[in-house]
Amino acid sequence: MSAETVKDYDYSEWYENAVPTKPPVEVIPPCDPTADEGLFHICIAAISLVVMLVLAILARRKKLGDNQRGLTGLLSPVNFLDHTQHKGLAVAVYGVLFCKLLAMVLSHHPLPFTKDVVNKELWLILALLYYPALYYPLLACGTLHNKVGYVLGSLLSWTHFGVLVWQKVDCPKTPQIYKYYALFNSLPQIACLAFLSFQYPLLLFKGLQNTETSNASEVRLFDQIKAVMLVLIYCHFISFPSVFRFPLKLAISVVVAFIALYQMALLLVSGVLPTLHIVRRGVDENIAFLLAGFNIILSDDRQEVVRIVVYYLWCVEICYVSAVTLSCLLNLLMLMRSMVQHRSNLKGLYRGDIFTVYNCHRSIRPSRPALVCWMGFTSYQAAFICLGMVIQTLVFFICILFAVFLVIIPILYGTNLMLFRIIGKMWPFWLMLFLAVLIQHVTSRFLFIKKDAGTRDLNNRGSLFLLSYMLFLINVMVGVILGIWRIVITALFNIVHLGRLDISLLNRNIEPFDSGYRCYAHYLKIEVSQSHPVMKAFCGLLLQTSGQDSVSAQRMRDAEEGLSFCFFIASVHDNNMMKIYSLESSLFQSLVSNSKLLVFRTNSEPLD
Amino acid sequence: MSAETVKDYDYSEWYENAVPTKPPVEVIPPCDPTADEGLFHICIAAISLVVMLVLAILARRKKLGDNQRGLTGLLSPVNFLDHTQHKGLAVAVYGVLFCKLLAMVLSHHPLPFTKDVVNKELWLILALLYYPALYYPLLACGTLHNKVGYVLGSLLSWTHFGVLVWQKVDCPKTPQIYKYYALFNSLPQIACLAFLSFQYPLLLFKGLQNTETSNASEVRLFDQIKAVMLVLIYCHFISFPSVFRFPLKLAISVVVAFIALYQMALLLVSGVLPTLHIVRRGVDENIAFLLAGFNIILSDDRQEVVRIVVYYLWCVEICYVSAVTLSCLLNLLMLMRSMVQHRSNLKGLYRGDIFTVYNCHRSIRPSRPALVCWMGFTSYQAAFICLGMVIQTLVFFICILFAVFLVIIPILYGTNLMLFRIIGKMWPFWLMLFLAVLIQHVTSRFLFIKKDAGTRDLNNRGSLFLLSYMLFLINVMVGVILGIWRIVITALFNIVHLGRLDISLLNRNIEPFDSGYRCYAHYLKIEVSQSHPVMKAFCGLLLQTSGQDSVSAQRMRDAEEGLSFCFFIASVHDNNMMKIYSLESSLFQSLVSNSKLLVFRTNSEPLD
Repeated sequence: MSAETVKDYDYSEWYENAVPTKPPVEVIPPCDPTADEGLFHICIAAISLVVMLVLAILARRKKLGDNQRGLTGLLSPVNFLDHTQHKGLAVAVYGVLFCKLLAMVLSHHPLPFTKDVVNKELWLILALLYYPALYYPLLACGTLHNKVGYVLGSLLSWTHFGVLVWQKVDCPKTPQIYKYYALFNSLPQIACLAFLSFQYPLLLFKGLQNTETSNASEVRLFDQIKAVMLVLIYCHFISFPSVFRFPLKLAISVVVAFIALYQMALLLVSGVLPTLHIVRRGVDENIAFLLAGFNIILSDDRQEVVRIVVYYLWCVEICYVSAVTLSCLLNLLMLMRSMVQHRSNLKGLYRGDIFTVYNCHRSIRPSRPALVCWMGFTSYQAAFICLGMVIQTLVFFICILFAVFLVIIPILYGTNLMLFRIIGKMWPFWLMLFLAVLIQHVTSRFLFIKKDAGTRDLNNRGSLFLLSYMLFLINVMVGVILGIWRIVITALFNIVHLGRLDISLLNRNIEPFDSGYRCYAHYLKIEVSQSHPVMKAFCGLLLQTSGQDSVSAQRMRDAEEGLSFCFFIASVHDNNMMKIYSLESSLFQSLVSNSKLLVFRTNSEPLD
Repeated sequence: MSAETVKDYDYSEWYENAVPTKPPVEVIPPCDPTADEGLFHICIAAISLVVMLVLAILARRKKLGDNQRGLTGLLSPVNFLDHTQHKGLAVAVYGVLFCKLLAMVLSHHPLPFTKDVVNKELWLILALLYYPALYYPLLACGTLHNKVGYVLGSLLSWTHFGVLVWQKVDCPKTPQIYKYYALFNSLPQIACLAFLSFQYPLLLFKGLQNTETSNASEVRLFDQIKAVMLVLIYCHFISFPSVFRFPLKLAISVVVAFIALYQMALLLVSGVLPTLHIVRRGVDENIAFLLAGFNIILSDDRQEVVRIVVYYLWCVEICYVSAVTLSCLLNLLMLMRSMVQHRSNLKGLYRGDIFTVYNCHRSIRPSRPALVCWMGFTSYQAAFICLGMVIQTLVFFICILFAVFLVIIPILYGTNLMLFRIIGKMWPFWLMLFLAVLIQHVTSRFLFIKKDAGTRDLNNRGSLFLLSYMLFLINVMVGVILGIWRIVITALFNIVHLGRLDISLLNRNIEPFDSGYRCYAHYLKIEVSQSHPVMKAFCGLLLQTSGQDSVSAQRMRDAEEGLSFCFFIASVHDNNMMKIYSLESSLFQSLVSNSKLLVFRTNSEPLD
């Protein structure tokens, strides 16, 4: 840059003349809701503690009475390995928790008790443990299956729901990211809390939980006995279409994944679009000079330039929205396909098709890594969806941008035909490649392959060898196209399937190196080993023999009888078909909590 | 930018004072070799045509005599499906051809007859067909297996070799890309031509080809009979370690891939390094002002700034060279592993382990797509290696650059500790993640898994459920790390294995969508269906029974006897084990060219 060029680009004159027409940007003041966040949390934490204490006292008293679950039940209010239990409460609480996570990470003071901004990391870590503890009573209230629990649960969920709605009505606009971001962000949370506020009174209204569940359990028992009969009749091939239920963990994962999808889409849209809007609104005639500085002259008329730039910016917005929408739809589709895959994998493993599911022979037993993966499965699924959406949106945005500015706009307006000109200039090359491939296909079909008495064989070997020698160099060019295709298809497949844990993104020989698939494979192990429907059906049978109103000691003896009955059935059948495993039945454990029961599990191969 | 800031960055003063110290760049004039390329090609094309005519006349005369291969042999001088033939000539000619390709694409006038630069595409397409035709006689001279052919081959290869060496000695430096690029580029071509120039006289010197091959074929026959015996003894499990030979197509592919590796490495190094060298030599004190313009002030002393910039540029060079080297080494390693994989795949398919190789059940029969893939295999392999190297170099360069400037230089000099500062600031977060994972592993190991009588089962379910609820939010963070790890490992694996056709980069269920792997899978089909060693061994047996000096009619009758013998053996054995296929034996066809022979092929399953 010499002194002369500097003079050429001396914009000082029009900088002084031009009055920058700054668009009126809406300034949103920080809003403090009447129900102060800090104060509310102090109160609700105290209330939750009291509720937990009341529940604990109730649980102790009940344990002395006739209820089978005491404090143990209160400390593990959700039984992830029971497929038959009502999933609503657990799913809703997990949903509320996950909604809090994103709000927490984006907030300047993650823990509501403090306004300290310096040690945000430390407060965030505390918040990551505080919120699960805060929402714990919402889950625990349903555990005892009695009126007091439901009343407490209703009150607690109403409080949470009411205060949240009040806060949002008070302060619908916040200065954070986008004026309505905080409102939209809390919608799934409000929905989950509303569900809880509705569910607890419903449970209370339904009156005595015992009659309700006994009816349900009788229906369930019928299913289970049916399954047992099926086992006994079709010893080799177990079919239980009506008994299949999605595991609770999977149900939670799906709901959390949907919320993650919504939250990420909201963040992606509200994080970028308002800025683009502001930029578009702020475009004025100065843009013509600015572009001229970069030697880009769109038009001699300044107004025309403004119109073109605004139009292009609008195109960019459309591209971005399309990319986010595409990413959302793809992830939704992938979630649906995941569910189908989960179902078929679980049914396959129940049948014993280990090789089909894992592509190798594995033992379906709990192990340390399997348990760790099982614990984290829901979280990992949500995290993978979030990451996948960010990357997908980025890649799709770039691709759509290229498509719009290099293909669609040139076609519509006949300008910027660069890409078409390049492709047009290369037509002899494309024609050559096409002809070379065509020749190879046609000659292969009609000249080099001979059908003879139902078999196919090579013919005219000499010409085949000659052709493959002569087309060697042209085929290298074809190979470059194929290579680019390979890169594109691999990248696209992996980006689209990034959020799915049920399929590996790697080659079949090194599948365990894919952290997502490894987690899923281990997760399945635990699920299948702990909740085999045949095992559950036998537990149901034992349950029925033990009856509903006999004493504990009697129940224990019956369980022992049931056990020997199981062993009897197992020994009657071929030993190769039936294998006896030591398995804790989670369903049975909830009734006879002190005893450990050995039940058999079939490992038979399907007949097809 | 206001008028004031413009004044601040008004460099005109020192632009006028500073004398730009342009480094002396060596100017290489265009060099015309004494052996003019156009003239040489006119002469050599004419000579090649004459050679082909002489060979054709010889072939016709021979066909009337006792040789079995006539014009047909001349028109297909290379038998890709014969594993036992001498591979040297074909490999060398393919090598020469491939070397020409890159020189052709980069050259301004691809066809040596014309200096027309406007229609480069059209001339390139013609050149893609001209060069295979030009080098064709080099291959054809070895087909007739007689002295005249070898003499002509020697003369032709000497001419090619001599003129090429003469041209390179005449003009070692060219203005193209890098002064010695054209010289280095032609080294593999010189090597291949030297091999041909040595091989043809050697063949001539070895005297009568008949005695030479008959010895070889007797040794081969011994092998084949051994294989037959093995078939008869180990009917179920065929082991033929000593008989295994790499297919010719594969041998050519590997050599061409090595040349592609060399050429791409040369292009990548010579296309970038000289420019970087020139930039580094051109750094003077002006760089300090230039950087100040971007608000980057490395030091107050201008000389110091120059030293720092030169050092950084040197680092960039080192990074680039490392990236190219790493890419080369990785591709070499991948080629080696490919060979191992090819060997095991071929042996597996010979044994009938179709499921192990393809992960699905396929019929090993020639088909149209299979044949097209087989024809292009060598070319595709070379193209994939080239593409893979470019992408690998790019990715590795970026990664190494980041590692050097964000990790190594900061550690060595204690400056620019950005990355370490960010990581250091986030230590509570990392510690939390580490502790969460550790807790889950330790509790899984000691608390939640119970070993009982050789079996493992869950224990303390309540605490397990509680822990997995409490760690839900922290596990989402762990999931983000796992997701990033998944992306990195998938991308790295795919980039490293981009040049390998023998493994799929996609998930096991959609492997056929990977163009590279699809091509390889089809290629294997043709190779295996056409050159099963057991089939070849039987042909050898038939060959022996027909003897060496009996007349054609007698040989035909013996072939028929051999055929019935094959059928006899096949029928003796279990029909499920042995399947009778109609297969043309390429080896046998070379002897009894008119007859079509049905030979059996075992499709037995291995015992293990």
